[in-house]
Amino acid sequence: VARRLDLDQLEAGIRAADRAALARGITLVESARPGDLDLAQELIERLLPATGQARRVGISGPPGVGKSSFIEALGKRLVAAGHRLAVLAIDPSSTVSGGSILGDKARMTDLAREEAAFIRPSPSATSLGGVARRTREASLLCEAAGYDTILIETVGVGQSEVAVADMVDSFCVLAQPASGDELQGIKRGILELADLVVVHKADGDLLSRARITAQEMISAFRYARPRPGGWRPRALLVSSLKGEGFEDFLRALDEHRAGLMTDGSLDELRREQRRRWLWTEIRELLAERFSADPVLRERLAEAEEAVSAGTRSVTAAARALLA
Amino acid sequence: VARRLDLDQLEAGIRAADRAALARGITLVESARPGDLDLAQELIERLLPATGQARRVGISGPPGVGKSSFIEALGKRLVAAGHRLAVLAIDPSSTVSGGSILGDKARMTDLAREEAAFIRPSPSATSLGGVARRTREASLLCEAAGYDTILIETVGVGQSEVAVADMVDSFCVLAQPASGDELQGIKRGILELADLVVVHKADGDLLSRARITAQEMISAFRYARPRPGGWRPRALLVSSLKGEGFEDFLRALDEHRAGLMTDGSLDELRREQRRRWLWTEIRELLAERFSADPVLRERLAEAEEAVSAGTRSVTAAARALLA
Repeated sequence: VARRLDLDQLEAGIRAADRAALARGITLVESARPGDLDLAQELIERLLPATGQARRVGISGPPGVGKSSFIEALGKRLVAAGHRLAVLAIDPSSTVSGGSILGDKARMTDLAREEAAFIRPSPSATSLGGVARRTREASLLCEAAGYDTILIETVGVGQSEVAVADMVDSFCVLAQPASGDELQGIKRGILELADLVVVHKADGDLLSRARITAQEMISAFRYARPRPGGWRPRALLVSSLKGEGFEDFLRALDEHRAGLMTDGSLDELRREQRRRWLWTEIRELLAERFSADPVLRERLAEAEEAVSAGTRSVTAAARALLA
Repeated sequence: VARRLDLDQLEAGIRAADRAALARGITLVESARPGDLDLAQELIERLLPATGQARRVGISGPPGVGKSSFIEALGKRLVAAGHRLAVLAIDPSSTVSGGSILGDKARMTDLAREEAAFIRPSPSATSLGGVARRTREASLLCEAAGYDTILIETVGVGQSEVAVADMVDSFCVLAQPASGDELQGIKRGILELADLVVVHKADGDLLSRARITAQEMISAFRYARPRPGGWRPRALLVSSLKGEGFEDFLRALDEHRAGLMTDGSLDELRREQRRRWLWTEIRELLAERFSADPVLRERLAEAEEAVSAGTRSVTAAARALLA
């Protein structure tokens, strides 16, 4: 009963945009304790009707491209324009050992002081699936707390980037001004997922190279698959140092979202995302159940022995276990 | 019977280091047809006793760092020294749409002409787990064909990097000469996994910056977790353009491996890797079985509907399905 009262309080606090309640709600969602999981799910289901109104934006790019300074500069503009902004993160390195590539501690100190901005570092978990679930659920709580813009940040190439692209409306990739071979590598990485490419650090000595990079991206996008809502990805120049390019970026973001909303593409996109998320959850849960079964655990120990001794092929052993 | 005769022939061909047989064997391992899977597993189990002697080396680094030119220059030296070299790849972008970041087609044309070198592009599959399994099994076939050095290449940060680090003896990361903030980002990404860091493009204008980068890495490694065999990771300067630094790199690689072999760490490392691989396989198979069950499929359709309509929390729906 006590915990249910807590839940009533937590729900009311989040709906009233109380930051402390929101932080406690996210901690509950991130908790690995079994009892907490049930409570967290009840909290989320209660709040679901209050979600879905925010614009969800993913920001990706390799270490060193300046994601933090970009998000800080962007966030301050959004707040000044009357928006309420939540910044979340998915850091794949947190699944290895708890070390963090994004290094949230010292980041975005100015933005963090804004009343209308809520910044939360990447959750840690043993799998990328676990990290992604917690971030998705945290973003739902932020929406229920009335944040109208959710930025989800991640690092460079790989599965974490795919995971973030699969939980946002607009996926933006930051790129360095580049040339020659570098450009080829960057282009291939970006073409699949990006709705917007920001060529960052477009200032000083790098400005002319940034222009060439953006031009190359635009040519490359001509041959990319069409996106939902008929969107053609764009490349823009931004300098966080000089505060330039943010108006163009925000306008492009608005146009992308407006396009998705006119023909129902946004609803369809979000439905598909939830469907894929369900599958990811099922996969994680199946593995948990499997390892908790006592009979299977014994057979598993034998299979592990044969496999680690190198007498059995791994794929064959896994198939035999499941037969 | 016909297929069994084929298998005898394939096994004999691979053991005799016949390149065409090896290529056919890998195609069998990469095949998604159910019948092929059984044959592939039988082939692998027959060849297992002939595996395990090769040195397994992972090469990672972001797009544009020059992995191809590094591997080509390294490979030509290894071949000249009498080694037989197989180059395999794990390209995470191939799981999205078949597009490739590594862009194997035009790469390593000189090395590909060498009789003692075998180059195979990244397999494609619907999941990173699928790509990784195929690459692991392809590397076993290469070992059975007498290749004494297996290089497995992948791109930058993320789960594909973790996957490759988990299938090699020595994991090497290529980094750009960098400074300031960039350096911080690169360092955090590298510290967890790298046994050796190659600061690449250490020539011309970038040489002094490369020296600083290597020095920074070395300082950072002082605080990194100790590696198996008591190894302390190293950072080295290499220029593929000028052909410099390869002797140092190969010496460091030999020392790393020698250290792992003296105290049994190499065996222990490989046993652990096979154990984790077994778990990955089990997870993939469970999801396959689940989606093939007709009763579950119907319930799944209902859950998908509720979730995609936004009336049910995804985590709660997944748990209800598995209850």
